[in-house]
Amino acid sequence: MPAQSLDPLFCPSSIAVIGASSDPRKIGGRPIAYMLRSGYAGQLLPINPKQEEVQGLKAYASLADVGHPVDQVIVAVSGALVERAVEEALEQRARSIVIFSSGFGETGHDGKLAQERLAARCRDAGVHLVGPNCIGIFSSRNAMYSTFMSALEHEIFEPGQVGIVSQSGAVGSYLYGLAGDRGVRFSHFVATGNEAGVDVADCIEWMAHDDNTRVILTYLEGCGDGQRLRRALETARARRKPVVVMKVGASEQGAAAAASHTGSLAGADVVFDTIFKEGGAWRAQTLEELVDVGYACAISVLPQGNRLGVITPSGGIGVIAADECERSGLVLPHLPQAQQDQIKEIVPFASGTNPVDTTGQVVSDRKLFNRIMKIVFDFDGFDSVLSFNANIGKTEIEWSKVRDDLLELRRQYPRKLVALSMRSRPEVVKELEDNHILYFPDPALATRTIGALAWIAQAQRAAPSPRIAVAGATAAEALPVGDIDEAGARGILARAGVPFAPQHVANSAAEAARAAAQMGFPVVIKVLSPDIAHKSDVGGVVLNLRSEEAVRGAWDAMMAKVSANCPDARIQGAVVSPMITGGVETVLGMVNDPVFGPMMMFGLGGIFVEIFKDVTFHSAPLDLAQAQAMIRAIKGVPLLDGARGKAPVDLDALAQALVRLSEFVAAHADSLASVEINPFIALPEGGYAVDALIIRK
Amino acid sequence: MPAQSLDPLFCPSSIAVIGASSDPRKIGGRPIAYMLRSGYAGQLLPINPKQEEVQGLKAYASLADVGHPVDQVIVAVSGALVERAVEEALEQRARSIVIFSSGFGETGHDGKLAQERLAARCRDAGVHLVGPNCIGIFSSRNAMYSTFMSALEHEIFEPGQVGIVSQSGAVGSYLYGLAGDRGVRFSHFVATGNEAGVDVADCIEWMAHDDNTRVILTYLEGCGDGQRLRRALETARARRKPVVVMKVGASEQGAAAAASHTGSLAGADVVFDTIFKEGGAWRAQTLEELVDVGYACAISVLPQGNRLGVITPSGGIGVIAADECERSGLVLPHLPQAQQDQIKEIVPFASGTNPVDTTGQVVSDRKLFNRIMKIVFDFDGFDSVLSFNANIGKTEIEWSKVRDDLLELRRQYPRKLVALSMRSRPEVVKELEDNHILYFPDPALATRTIGALAWIAQAQRAAPSPRIAVAGATAAEALPVGDIDEAGARGILARAGVPFAPQHVANSAAEAARAAAQMGFPVVIKVLSPDIAHKSDVGGVVLNLRSEEAVRGAWDAMMAKVSANCPDARIQGAVVSPMITGGVETVLGMVNDPVFGPMMMFGLGGIFVEIFKDVTFHSAPLDLAQAQAMIRAIKGVPLLDGARGKAPVDLDALAQALVRLSEFVAAHADSLASVEINPFIALPEGGYAVDALIIRK
Repeated sequence: MPAQSLDPLFCPSSIAVIGASSDPRKIGGRPIAYMLRSGYAGQLLPINPKQEEVQGLKAYASLADVGHPVDQVIVAVSGALVERAVEEALEQRARSIVIFSSGFGETGHDGKLAQERLAARCRDAGVHLVGPNCIGIFSSRNAMYSTFMSALEHEIFEPGQVGIVSQSGAVGSYLYGLAGDRGVRFSHFVATGNEAGVDVADCIEWMAHDDNTRVILTYLEGCGDGQRLRRALETARARRKPVVVMKVGASEQGAAAAASHTGSLAGADVVFDTIFKEGGAWRAQTLEELVDVGYACAISVLPQGNRLGVITPSGGIGVIAADECERSGLVLPHLPQAQQDQIKEIVPFASGTNPVDTTGQVVSDRKLFNRIMKIVFDFDGFDSVLSFNANIGKTEIEWSKVRDDLLELRRQYPRKLVALSMRSRPEVVKELEDNHILYFPDPALATRTIGALAWIAQAQRAAPSPRIAVAGATAAEALPVGDIDEAGARGILARAGVPFAPQHVANSAAEAARAAAQMGFPVVIKVLSPDIAHKSDVGGVVLNLRSEEAVRGAWDAMMAKVSANCPDARIQGAVVSPMITGGVETVLGMVNDPVFGPMMMFGLGGIFVEIFKDVTFHSAPLDLAQAQAMIRAIKGVPLLDGARGKAPVDLDALAQALVRLSEFVAAHADSLASVEINPFIALPEGGYAVDALIIRK
Repeated sequence: MPAQSLDPLFCPSSIAVIGASSDPRKIGGRPIAYMLRSGYAGQLLPINPKQEEVQGLKAYASLADVGHPVDQVIVAVSGALVERAVEEALEQRARSIVIFSSGFGETGHDGKLAQERLAARCRDAGVHLVGPNCIGIFSSRNAMYSTFMSALEHEIFEPGQVGIVSQSGAVGSYLYGLAGDRGVRFSHFVATGNEAGVDVADCIEWMAHDDNTRVILTYLEGCGDGQRLRRALETARARRKPVVVMKVGASEQGAAAAASHTGSLAGADVVFDTIFKEGGAWRAQTLEELVDVGYACAISVLPQGNRLGVITPSGGIGVIAADECERSGLVLPHLPQAQQDQIKEIVPFASGTNPVDTTGQVVSDRKLFNRIMKIVFDFDGFDSVLSFNANIGKTEIEWSKVRDDLLELRRQYPRKLVALSMRSRPEVVKELEDNHILYFPDPALATRTIGALAWIAQAQRAAPSPRIAVAGATAAEALPVGDIDEAGARGILARAGVPFAPQHVANSAAEAARAAAQMGFPVVIKVLSPDIAHKSDVGGVVLNLRSEEAVRGAWDAMMAKVSANCPDARIQGAVVSPMITGGVETVLGMVNDPVFGPMMMFGLGGIFVEIFKDVTFHSAPLDLAQAQAMIRAIKGVPLLDGARGKAPVDLDALAQALVRLSEFVAAHADSLASVEINPFIALPEGGYAVDALIIRK
C-alpha cells in the first residue's frame, strides 16, 4: 500500500483508546489527557467496560458500542489482552492501530510468534499497525497525541515543520526535548517500536509527501527492508526534504549493545554509510549534530554551493572557521581586490581577504562593521555568510546597532544562507530565527552545520542514482547449478563483459609446458581446485616461469606442496596464463548485503585492502560515472594515476570492468553471496582479471 | 627569570593606569571601573595630567608624582606615546607593564622595530611586559582587572579555578563568556597579544604553580619558543594541572588566515599535535570542546582508567554511548554474572551487561533504577559511571526520587568520575556540579569528554619524556665542514650506531665488478654524486646484478643515463652493495622544526609515506620504549609483524636504529636541517640502512 495512505495514522478524525484510564499519568490515560489539553478536534473515544466516563469524556464498554468505525485504535492494555483488542479493532473496521503494549518481539521466541500473528492479521486487513512496544505517534499539526510520552506532561510545543521518525521511543522523546530546547518545533512524531507493521521507511516516505514537514530527523538502529528505506530517501530527496539520520551501532561495542536492545538487523555500518550518501541523507554522529543540522534545515534556505564568506572582528575566530571549513568541505574564496580596497578604506588594518577581519576597531563604532558586512553580503561569490559578533546579542544597546542593517541585508539576499555566531539573549535568538538567520554560539559548529547543509543541497541537486536496465544477454544467462570453480567463474564473468587474461587449463605438466610455449613466456601457473580459495597461501601459485622446462619443474613442485598442505582438496589441474607485469593490482568485489542487496567494492590489491582498508562501496548496478567516482574515492588513487614514475593506468577500462561486474551481480542478486575479482590488473592500456571467485548464497 | 616571578602581573598590590579615563567605557577607563566594582584591595592610581580625579580616585599628573614604585603599570595611551610611558614606568621601577595599545608588531616593519625596542628595554630592566596590542590580564581571585575586555561590563563572574591563557584577546574574551555560560568560573585570565615579553608558555608555567588554578585553557595561534612551551606543559603535568589547548591554523585555509592575523610562527600542525601529546595537553578542535573538557576537569576528579559503566533506561542511548566509547578510547567492561543476575531480579527484561539497560519500566518506579544504579556504582571495575536520566532534571518531583541515592553513591565513591546526561533545570545542574557530578545534555558529548579526561589522567601518570644524555662519543664527533655526500652521511651515521649494509665505493666498472665478486651476488649499484638526491629517478640505481659481467654492463649504461639526465652533476663513482631481499622498507627521518627542534619521523617506505602519509612523529632524542611506540603507532604495523605469510621483522633492531639516529640528531640539532634514512630495510634478524641523506641548516 502506498505510504501516503498513512493518513489514518497521522491525521485520524476519530481515535478510540482501548484500556483508557481516568488517571492522566497512566499509559492509558496520557493520550486522552494530552489531547484534551491540546484541543484535538476529532472524536476521542475512551473504551473501558468498568467506567461510564473517563477524564470527562463518555466511555464505551467496547469498540462495538461506539457504533461506527474509527480511524485509529490505541491499544493500551497488558500484553496478554492485546490480541483480543486487535481482533476487536479489526472487526470494527479500524483503519489504523497503535499498540503501546510490550511483551512481544523484544522478549524472545514466543513473543516474536505473537507479534507475527498480529502483523499478519493487520496486513491481511489492510490496516496500518504501529508497534507493538512503542511510545506512539503524534501530530502537533493536528493536535493529535496517540502517545504516552512522559515529556509531554510538561511541554507540548506549538507546531512546527520538523518531523521525527525514531525506532526508539526513549531516544525519540529525548530528541523532541533536546531539539525543542534549541527552538525546533515539530510537525509529526512517530516511534516505530518493534515495527511489526509500519516501519521507519514508511514514515519517512509519508513525511516526505507531507506539506507541513520541511525536514525529517531519524533515529535508526537497524533496517529490515533496505529497498523501502532507499525508496523513502529517494522520495525525500526528490521532494527536497532533507533527511538527517542518526544510525547507531557503528562501533563493535555499539553493535553489541544494539543487538541486546532490539531484534532488528544491524547491517555492516559502512553499508549504511553508503546508502545514506547515495540517498542524500546526512548522517549525524551525535544527538547534538542531529539537532543542529535539523534546526538549520528548518530555519534556513539551503546554500547554492559550498562557498562561505566569513566576517569577524576577531582574526582568531576567522582561523577557527577556516580550519573547520577544510574539515567540512567548504571553501573560502577571496573577495576581489576592489572590495578588499573598499574594506581597507573603512578600517585601515582590516584584512579584506576571507575570513574578513574587521579588527576590534568596529567594537567602538559598529557602523564600520555594518559597512563591511554590506560589502560581504553584496559579493555574489559567497553562497553563505557567517558573521561573528562576540557578545553583542547580550545587550539591547549593542544589538540595536547591528540589527537593522543585518535584517535589511537578509531581506535583500533571500537565497543566501546567513548564520550568526555570538552570545545572545533568547529574544535576540528568536528574532534571528524568525528572519531565517541561523544562530550558533560556537563559530566552528556554525561552520560545520553550514557544511552539512551545503552537502545536502548538493545531494538534492544530484540526479537520483539511475537504476540501469541490465543488458538482456547477461541477465539471461542462468548460473550453473552447484558450486562454481575458478574456471567456471572466469567463463561466466568473461561472458558478462569482464576482460580476462588468456589462459589454458592443463591436466599435466607436459600440457602446461606446451600451452606456455604457445602463449609466450614468462607465464604463471595456478592450481585449479574447487576446495582452495587462497591459492598462494598453500603454494598453489608459481610466478615468472621462463621456459618449458621451468614450467614442468614448477608443476611437480607445486602439486606436491598443495597435496601436502591440502590433502583433501580435489585437484582439477592447473591454469597457465601469461605473467602480466607493470600494472597495478586492484580488487573488484561484490558483497550481497542481506538488507540492502549487492554492494560493489573497489580497492587496490593486497595490503591496501587488508591493512589500510582503502576501499569504497556503492550499490550495484553502477553506471560509468559512478564507477569512476568509486575508483577516484580511494586514498591510493595516485598509484593509478602513475605515482613514482609509472605510466597511469587505463581508468576507463577499469571502470568499464566494474560496471560490467555490477550489472552481472545485479542480475543475479538473488543467487549470489559474493563475487571477488582479485586481482584485476589495471594496465596502461586495458586491464585483465586474473582470478575470480563466485560464492553462491 | 623563573615563571613564578609573574606574581607582579597576576597579584600586584598597586596598579597605575597611564592614560586613565573618567569614562568607564573607554579603554583607559575600563580597568578602573572594573576594579572599583570588584573591590580590588590594592592601590589603584590613575595617571592623567589633565585631571585631579578619575572615577572618584585621586589622579596623578605623572607616575613620578605617585612617590613610590608600583607593582604594575597599565599603558592605555595611543601608539605614539607608548615608548615614553614605558620609559616612565621603568624609571619609576615598576615591576610589570601591561600595554593595551596597538600599532606595533602587527602593523609591519616599523611597528616590529618599535616593539623590539620596548621588549629589549623591559628585558634589560627585568620587568615583565604583557602586550602590546593586548586586551590585558585579570585575576578573579584578586579582584584585579587590568583589562579593557568589554564582556566584563555586564558580567564579572565570581572566582573559580580555571585559568585562561589566550594569544587572542577576542577569542579569550569569548571563551570567558562561553565557558561562563556553561557554569565555569575562573582564577586568572591573560591575553598575551603580540607577546613582546611574556608569552603563553610563561603564563601556563605560572598558573601551573598557582594553587588557585586547577585547569588551564589555552588558545594558541603559533609559538615562538618551543622549548619554553614544552617546559610549561611538563610543569603542568608534573603538578597535575590539566592543560586543554585549542591550536588553530590546522588547515591550509586556517594557516593562511592565521598568517594574515598574527606575526607568530605557525609550525607544521602535526608537530604541534606531537608536542601536545608528549606534554599531556588535550587538544580541542572547537571552542565547545575546549569548554566541555575544561568544565569537566574543573568539577570532577580525573578517572583512574578508561573503563566506563553506563546505566540508562533507554537501550538506544546505551548504543549511542557505546559508539562514542570506541571513538574516545573508552571500554565498556561487562558486569560480572552475579551482578547481572541481581539486575534481572530487579527488572526481568533489563540488560545487565554494559551499557546497563534498565528498560523504561523504571520510569514508573524510580526505586528500581536506584537499586540498579547502586549495583553499577558498587562494581569496582568501572573508573567512571555515566547515568542517562532523560528528562528527570526538568521536574522537582522526578528529580527528588533519584537525588538522594545518587548523591549518597557519589559520596561513597569519591574517586570515580560521575556524569549525568539528562535535560535539566539550572538549579539541578548547579546541585550536580556542587557535588562534582558532570552534567551533559548530550550522552555522546558526555562520553567523549570522559574519554578526554581518561586520556589526560593517563598522560599525567606517564613519566615525563626522559631527556637522554647523549653518549659522549657520538656527541663529540664534529660534523665535517660543507655539504655531506652519501658516503659521508653513511660513515657519520654508522659511527653514531646506525647499522648499514656492507658497501664499496668504486671508481670504475672493473673495480665495481671486483668488489661485487668479493661481496657475493646479487648486488646493487648506485651512482655517487653530491648533486643527486633521488637517484632512482634519474636512472642512478641498478638492482639485482648477478655476475661480474652484469655489473660492468650496468655501470656503463647507468653512467650514460645519469649523464644524460643530469649533465651538470658531479659524479664520484658508484656504490656497490649486496642486494637485500625479504625485508620491509622503512624510512627513519628527522626534520628540525624551527620552533620545536629535531622531530623524529618513522614510516614504511615509498608510497606509504608519500600517498598514505602513514607516519608518526616524536621529539628527539628517543628512548627505546618511545621508539617502539612510534613504530607501533603506524597503521601499516601488520606489515612489520609479518602480514601475508612473511616472517615478522626484528622490531628491536629497528627501534635501536631509531634511537641511535635520534641521539645523533639531538647532539647536532644546531647544525642539521634534516636527516633521512630511506630505505632502512627491517629484516627478520637485524636490519640495514641502505641510503642516507644529511642536509645541513
